[in-house]
Amino acid sequence: MQLRHMNQFIPLQGIISENLPPDKHLGEADMSTIEISKEEADPDEKERLERIKNKPLLVECFNLFDFEFVARHVMKKTAWAYYSSGADDEITMRENHSAFAKIWFKPRILVDVDKVDYSTIMLGTRCSAPFYVTATALGKLGHPEGETVLTKAAHTHDIIQMIPTLASCSFEQIRDAAVEGQTQWLQLYVNKDRSLTKRIVQTAEGQGIKGLFITVDAPQLGRREKDMRSKFGDIGAHEQRSDNDVDRTQGVARAISSFIDPSLSWQDIPWFQTITKMPIVLKGVQCAEDAIKAVEYGVQGIVVSNHGGRQLDYARSGIEILVEVMAALRERNWQDRLEVFCDGGIRRATDIIKAIALGAKGVGIGRPFLYAMSAYGVEGVERAMLLLKQELEMNMRLIGATKISDLNPTILDLKSIGTHSVPTPTDVLSSQEYDGLLVPKSKPKAKL
Amino acid sequence: MQLRHMNQFIPLQGIISENLPPDKHLGEADMSTIEISKEEADPDEKERLERIKNKPLLVECFNLFDFEFVARHVMKKTAWAYYSSGADDEITMRENHSAFAKIWFKPRILVDVDKVDYSTIMLGTRCSAPFYVTATALGKLGHPEGETVLTKAAHTHDIIQMIPTLASCSFEQIRDAAVEGQTQWLQLYVNKDRSLTKRIVQTAEGQGIKGLFITVDAPQLGRREKDMRSKFGDIGAHEQRSDNDVDRTQGVARAISSFIDPSLSWQDIPWFQTITKMPIVLKGVQCAEDAIKAVEYGVQGIVVSNHGGRQLDYARSGIEILVEVMAALRERNWQDRLEVFCDGGIRRATDIIKAIALGAKGVGIGRPFLYAMSAYGVEGVERAMLLLKQELEMNMRLIGATKISDLNPTILDLKSIGTHSVPTPTDVLSSQEYDGLLVPKSKPKAKL
Amino acid sequence: MQLRHMNQFIPLQGIISENLPPDKHLGEADMSTIEISKEEADPDEKERLERIKNKPLLVECFNLFDFEFVARHVMKKTAWAYYSSGADDEITMRENHSAFAKIWFKPRILVDVDKVDYSTIMLGTRCSAPFYVTATALGKLGHPEGETVLTKAAHTHDIIQMIPTLASCSFEQIRDAAVEGQTQWLQLYVNKDRSLTKRIVQTAEGQGIKGLFITVDAPQLGRREKDMRSKFGDIGAHEQRSDNDVDRTQGVARAISSFIDPSLSWQDIPWFQTITKMPIVLKGVQCAEDAIKAVEYGVQGIVVSNHGGRQLDYARSGIEILVEVMAALRERNWQDRLEVFCDGGIRRATDIIKAIALGAKGVGIGRPFLYAMSAYGVEGVERAMLLLKQELEMNMRLIGATKISDLNPTILDLKSIGTHSVPTPTDVLSSQEYDGLLVPKSKPKAKL
Amino acid sequence: MQLRHMNQFIPLQGIISENLPPDKHLGEADMSTIEISKEEADPDEKERLERIKNKPLLVECFNLFDFEFVARHVMKKTAWAYYSSGADDEITMRENHSAFAKIWFKPRILVDVDKVDYSTIMLGTRCSAPFYVTATALGKLGHPEGETVLTKAAHTHDIIQMIPTLASCSFEQIRDAAVEGQTQWLQLYVNKDRSLTKRIVQTAEGQGIKGLFITVDAPQLGRREKDMRSKFGDIGAHEQRSDNDVDRTQGVARAISSFIDPSLSWQDIPWFQTITKMPIVLKGVQCAEDAIKAVEYGVQGIVVSNHGGRQLDYARSGIEILVEVMAALRERNWQDRLEVFCDGGIRRATDIIKAIALGAKGVGIGRPFLYAMSAYGVEGVERAMLLLKQELEMNMRLIGATKISDLNPTILDLKSIGTHSVPTPTDVLSSQEYDGLLVPKSKPKAKL
Ligand code: HEM
Ligand code: HEM
Ligand SMILES: Cc1cc2nc3c(=O)[nH]c(=O)nc-3n(C[C@H](O)[C@H](O)[C@H](O)COP(=O)(O)O)c2cc1C
Ligand SMILES: Cc1cc2nc3c(=O)[nH]c(=O)nc-3n(C[C@H](O)[C@H](O)[C@H](O)COP(=O)(O)O)c2cc1C
Ligand SMILES: Cc1cc2nc3c(=O)[nH]c(=O)nc-3n(C[C@H](O)[C@H](O)[C@H](O)COP(=O)(O)O)c2cc1C
Ligand SMILES: Cc1cc2nc3c(=O)[nH]c(=O)nc-3n(C[C@H](O)[C@H](O)[C@H](O)COP(=O)(O)O)c2cc1C
Repeated sequence: MQLRHMNQFIPLQGIISENLPPDKHLGEADMSTIEISKEEADPDEKERLERIKNKPLLVECFNLFDFEFVARHVMKKTAWAYYSSGADDEITMRENHSAFAKIWFKPRILVDVDKVDYSTIMLGTRCSAPFYVTATALGKLGHPEGETVLTKAAHTHDIIQMIPTLASCSFEQIRDAAVEGQTQWLQLYVNKDRSLTKRIVQTAEGQGIKGLFITVDAPQLGRREKDMRSKFGDIGAHEQRSDNDVDRTQGVARAISSFIDPSLSWQDIPWFQTITKMPIVLKGVQCAEDAIKAVEYGVQGIVVSNHGGRQLDYARSGIEILVEVMAALRERNWQDRLEVFCDGGIRRATDIIKAIALGAKGVGIGRPFLYAMSAYGVEGVERAMLLLKQELEMNMRLIGATKISDLNPTILDLKSIGTHSVPTPTDVLSSQEYDGLLVPKSKPKAKL
Repeated sequence: MQLRHMNQFIPLQGIISENLPPDKHLGEADMSTIEISKEEADPDEKERLERIKNKPLLVECFNLFDFEFVARHVMKKTAWAYYSSGADDEITMRENHSAFAKIWFKPRILVDVDKVDYSTIMLGTRCSAPFYVTATALGKLGHPEGETVLTKAAHTHDIIQMIPTLASCSFEQIRDAAVEGQTQWLQLYVNKDRSLTKRIVQTAEGQGIKGLFITVDAPQLGRREKDMRSKFGDIGAHEQRSDNDVDRTQGVARAISSFIDPSLSWQDIPWFQTITKMPIVLKGVQCAEDAIKAVEYGVQGIVVSNHGGRQLDYARSGIEILVEVMAALRERNWQDRLEVFCDGGIRRATDIIKAIALGAKGVGIGRPFLYAMSAYGVEGVERAMLLLKQELEMNMRLIGATKISDLNPTILDLKSIGTHSVPTPTDVLSSQEYDGLLVPKSKPKAKL
Repeated sequence: MQLRHMNQFIPLQGIISENLPPDKHLGEADMSTIEISKEEADPDEKERLERIKNKPLLVECFNLFDFEFVARHVMKKTAWAYYSSGADDEITMRENHSAFAKIWFKPRILVDVDKVDYSTIMLGTRCSAPFYVTATALGKLGHPEGETVLTKAAHTHDIIQMIPTLASCSFEQIRDAAVEGQTQWLQLYVNKDRSLTKRIVQTAEGQGIKGLFITVDAPQLGRREKDMRSKFGDIGAHEQRSDNDVDRTQGVARAISSFIDPSLSWQDIPWFQTITKMPIVLKGVQCAEDAIKAVEYGVQGIVVSNHGGRQLDYARSGIEILVEVMAALRERNWQDRLEVFCDGGIRRATDIIKAIALGAKGVGIGRPFLYAMSAYGVEGVERAMLLLKQELEMNMRLIGATKISDLNPTILDLKSIGTHSVPTPTDVLSSQEYDGLLVPKSKPKAKL
Repeated sequence: MQLRHMNQFIPLQGIISENLPPDKHLGEADMSTIEISKEEADPDEKERLERIKNKPLLVECFNLFDFEFVARHVMKKTAWAYYSSGADDEITMRENHSAFAKIWFKPRILVDVDKVDYSTIMLGTRCSAPFYVTATALGKLGHPEGETVLTKAAHTHDIIQMIPTLASCSFEQIRDAAVEGQTQWLQLYVNKDRSLTKRIVQTAEGQGIKGLFITVDAPQLGRREKDMRSKFGDIGAHEQRSDNDVDRTQGVARAISSFIDPSLSWQDIPWFQTITKMPIVLKGVQCAEDAIKAVEYGVQGIVVSNHGGRQLDYARSGIEILVEVMAALRERNWQDRLEVFCDGGIRRATDIIKAIALGAKGVGIGRPFLYAMSAYGVEGVERAMLLLKQELEMNMRLIGATKISDLNPTILDLKSIGTHSVPTPTDVLSSQEYDGLLVPKSKPKAKL
């Protein structure tokens, strides 16, 4: 048990293994094996295997939601719970996508849109589209080949991948899966032991990693109840539980917290600048004040993000923060002093276009690619990327934009961004007593 | 298969046939025949035929939604999918109607409303009411006689019809279905081959068409997933699919895109003005800036529209654009320099009155007439028009207006137009744990 | 059939009978008898009678919604349809009550509220509470004794009743049901034949009626589809229908319109002032401009109302109009030049208190008393009134008000009145793919 | 029957018994015994006992909603009805929690959050967290040991408990359950007989109570229909009812009102200041004006609260009042002249943090602890407190705050507080006719 949980958090093994204290030194995770024994006993598992056999053809997936739908039905319950869960009541997690519905388009007509080019440059790398695969931990929960699946699809589509510190494949495996010249970035959780962190960063830089994304929104890993509940279920089936178990799940979070340094602060930034020449990007900026500070500290970029709604509930969506951040930067004419990225809830090309038009250089996509990977492997992720590109081309054309630089705030209606409409509780009696309108009745059958 | 799809897009055959490149020269579409073989195999088809037999009497349709209800039950699934679908998540498609709920009335009382006259003049033609039949492609999917059904009903009610470039009947057939003096307009998709476009326009003008509506919101035809999925279903039942099918649907869209010229731009407008004396109207204007440009380019009108929500999702509703456009025109005192029309989501006379009061000369209605036609043919469309007129008379009276020119912004409460309220995601636990209020209980039955 | 409808609508018979053209002269309606023959055939009718037998005890009705619930189950379908229906999509009808949810309280504490007095004076009559029974046509549909049921309950509770022109009991019957000194008002539909109208008004004044409410929001009676459909059902079951029936319902509306004069206008007001000394109140004012006019024309009062949502859909709620009207009157310091009443959607004492605090002298209540009457007769209406009074006492105490004049705008939070929030259409895929949060699971049963 | 109700409400017996008029002198309540006879007859009761046997393990409760879920299933129906009910349509009751969704966070990153300390000082007492157990009547309905259960858990977690005047245990019992030095406050309903009130207050002070919370939002106890209905059910099953029962429930409220003095007013405050040195706090302040007055009258604190939504429906949520109150205090620079507390709807640490950041010294929590107590006794309440603390630590860290004084308005996005969004009634036809988007279909099973 303990073992199983520990295994889940062996990050960047190639780099780290030598540096880990012995009790964290457990060799590579083989999740498929570990899970199997348990799952066999599970009566639901048979049905799941049946569902896998009959899963829809890949070509029947027409948008990113479709992969989520299929994944939900074919993934192991615990894996689904881990990927799909968010903090507390998952308000922020869902707000992330729904916030995009507060922004509407003001398309221009009669523009020659014969040729549309949505390629762009992020942190110096030209890539085929303004989105990237963001870092997500524990890829092997969804697919036996883990993060390397994403690497391969990213290559097919000339898309940048961000490698997570807490990957389930080793850093070397992920690098090896990439082809010569394929750009990857590194997402970094900073360790209390800074010499370990230094070695990770420098190894990555040495291996050609092109950007260092320091996660700043996770001094402690979030409480995700869906995930806790799913684990509890497993445990409960096998063991005698006592009420002293109270803190076990919490304990895991704490174990990680001892790995992630909660004392990391602005004071540490200059040190990072001494140990690497990679552009440094702060992942998880959540208000204008911190974006301004980021410029002042001389970092190369920020990701406005709330960690996919997995950390603090009622944190605002990335897209809403983006509006505030860009306004503050433009006020000081600092919008070119760093690159702003945005993630959280991106599901449609229209979402991407909104972020780019507001001023983002690119957007990160997390769960959708995990779902595509879990349901259909490399081909799934490739199709997900293809669909996004088809939508991008179509929608830029319909907006009257032929290139990324045509996308700017004048094509957006932003009046409603920033409002959080909370419907007044329904008047139960009044609404249940209402007798809805009817539709015309069919003729009664001749007989009967 | 290929054949079937190609056939669907043979527009304006009479005019075009001589000009089409040979591989697009396929003769008139007979959709009913083509579909039949497949439908016979369909087990659902029997139920549908049963439903047709028992469909409600026409007189039981009391509003435009009723036709939609009946059509959904009696139309072929693929035809229903084509008519009813919209872009992406169909947010814009539904917003089109629901945006009208943001506008409320400030009716005037104690006005002599004995006589109410809602007739009006559009592009120089007096007609019985301020709405027209807008252009919609592929009428034969819904009714074997296609667009001519609309022509006949339009005549009965003295309503203008706009003929689509992509009609399933030939242009001549549609003209012939009209009676002497009946006004029709032409909706135009501009071809890469401008000589072809020129011939279409001039033929139309020669045959007495009274207005040229150039569609400017469709440089590429939209992705409508409901439609794609319905087609996929069909195909899947017959053929071995491989994942290389990925782009087939896309391919059809592209075939059409090669017919519709995506490079059409403002620079082309003067040319149109040289080839015709018909009033030129741009169909699909979506912001004030382009409305201003339209005046500057000297066209006679614009339709604020998002193509029925079939092109770009999160494009704003026609009625919301109308508010913005009229404000910009009035600011320059240009409101009389062109006629502004509006379409999208019109289902009630109150919707029409709102648009007219804001400044529109008339409104276009698409799907409701298609549904009335599909469910009940000419008589259906006639009743749909009659119901709208009855509602118009009633509602103008209740507003205190006796003629079109009485309708102006002072009768409207516009405070909420332009807001896009997106409810915060529900707090699932909090709401599911709420125990609703109860109603009084009946006495228990004497026995039991 | 024809007969049945005719009989139902013999209003103010005592007064009118002598003046009606012979073909409208049909004697008193006995609806219970007339209906029976048809209802016997109805298979649903048996179930309804069963439901009546088991209906909840009157004391189990704790609020006005409860009467609606019971009435829906025990009333005849057509009667229910007539009472409960509203115009078009019934948006305004439902908005009427839900608009009250836009106003919140700012109660004052530490006020001596030992004694609470909510009696008030309306048009010179002191009465026990600031609400009255508004005029509603066709009382006999709900109860064999029709409007006289309301008269009796009104007396018990010292509440004013407004007698409808289109009552199903004769005017004399309703007057006779009242006790000596009981105040009643008259609601007036103005006839094309002004001498008839004059006689009605003067007879009423002669018999001691204390106020003349001229309905100004119904130059034509509304289209209520629920009601139309319910009638259609009946007809359809018995007769061969042809599509020429199209206009039958419409025809009726027109017949009534010929009774109600749609040419009534401000020019007629001085004439009314010459024929009666009763205070004149315009029922159905819907914007500030007309309220101002009402003062200028010297009438004694107005009712801000949209006829219970039965006339024009998207007309604003009475309470919202009230805010606008009071602001306009106060701006000119005219708030004491006429009495403002308000009706529509009043269901709770909190609704009443909001209207009074905004400046209304009293509020009218329509459907709730009809439902109480239909379900439980006089005792039902009495209990409905009692419940309102109990709520009034309680809520005034909790607000820190001991008398009507303590209720003023400072106890209200009005920030949200006037906004019409229309939720953006839901992102179907995104919301259906969301996997809600779970609750703890029960232990599995010992066995199994 | 009568007896049962009497017994339930013997508050503060130790203090009061000597002072009560003889007819209110009934000895200590033993609810479990009294209820049993009736419940045995109840067929639902067997199922409830079954549910209790299988209730989830305590460790499976991961948040405060979980306790509500379990309590709903294991509590007696009448007890559940009493705890869970609110005034009228329970709009305010539900608004209390949902209002928190109008406030969002602007977390700060890169703050050293290694150590987080959420302890604080309220009315001079240091305690482990900024929440307290607020006063709720009738604890024995939920647990045979009543309020002492809360006392014990409060001690475990170093949390302050407020003792209710209307406790079901005697005041002495509750004091005795506390350990030496454990801080308790007293909630006071003021009696018409001030000498009785004086004795209660002085006894409490003598026994070391550290704060006097005078409830000012309940001059009359609220009408809670869910509760009324649940009682009616019971009665109905046993007795012959007549319609004269109308006022029975009302009568009880009146009996209580004769106990609680509705004439209590600001004039009484100076008197309280003469009889005690305990800090005086007004519980139930609901607008800025009264908060200002409270300062002027020299009390030590206020609780912005609406009594858990149990008194006046459409009273605003505590958190919304808090915003208004703090603004008014800060405007006069009076924010340190009294301590402001807040209660109502607190369910998550994020709720607590929002209130504290706005300026509250602490928040009261009512129902959640009652539910935890009813479902799991002392251990349940302890776990509820533990969960809140875990959430507090986590969320403060994620916000970038290490101590209570770091929480201030700059971490909040308050743009939407104060708006009461009431969705326009849905367009039933339009929404029911919408044909939702589909998801990919599974392959048909090989056979079949
Ligand atoms: C003096 C003559 C009449 C008067 C005063 C009268 C009055 C009324 C009134 C007050 C209503 C309900 C109005 C409302 O909803 O507010 C009504 C409805 C109706 N009346 Fe009459 N009526 C008259 C003659 C007739 C005649 C001649 C017919 C039939 C041939 C008729 C058939 C109906 C029907 C079917 C309705 C229901 C209308 C609906 O569905 O909205 N009435 N009438
Ligand atoms: C010193 C005497 C009494 C005290 C202090 C007292 C206190 C209370 C309290 C605190 C409540 C609940 C209040 C709340 O909902 O916040 C209550 C409710 C109730 N009491 Fe008493 N009570 C007393 C005497 C009585 C008597 C004499 C009766 C009956 C004859 C009675 C019957 C009830 C009933 C039926 C309820 C439920 C009320 C409802 O449904 O809202 N009580 N009482
Ligand atoms: C399963 C999962 C694991 C994640 N793990 C990490 C991580 O280890 N480090 C990190 O910085 N962000 C992590 N994230 C956050 C993502 O980088 C990104 O911010 C977020 O997923 C974007 O939202 P989306 O999933 O809606 O696209 C994770 C997200 C998910 C869903
Ligand atoms: C099935 C269908 C086909 C359409 N085809 C065309 C077309 O060929 N050309 C065009 O300009 N607009 C086309 N439209 C858009 C309509 O002209 C119009 O903008 C829209 O239908 C109005 O919205 P409504 O359907 O809600 O009334 C089509 C709309 C539908 C529903
Ligand atoms: C069944 C019914 C019949 C009505 N008949 C009349 C009428 O004849 N004359 C009139 O002025 N108002 C009439 N009204 C409108 C009412 O006077 C009042 O404006 C409305 O009912 C108030 O709304 P409420 O029903 O929500 O309380 C009628 C309303 C109903 C429900
Ligand atoms: C069952 C119950 C009984 C209550 N009894 C009292 C009371 O006797 N005196 C009082 O001042 N407040 C009383 N309250 C109000 C609480 O002190 C507090 O204001 C409220 O419960 C806070 O809301 P919450 O339940 O959502 O946390 C009671 C609340 C409940 C739920």
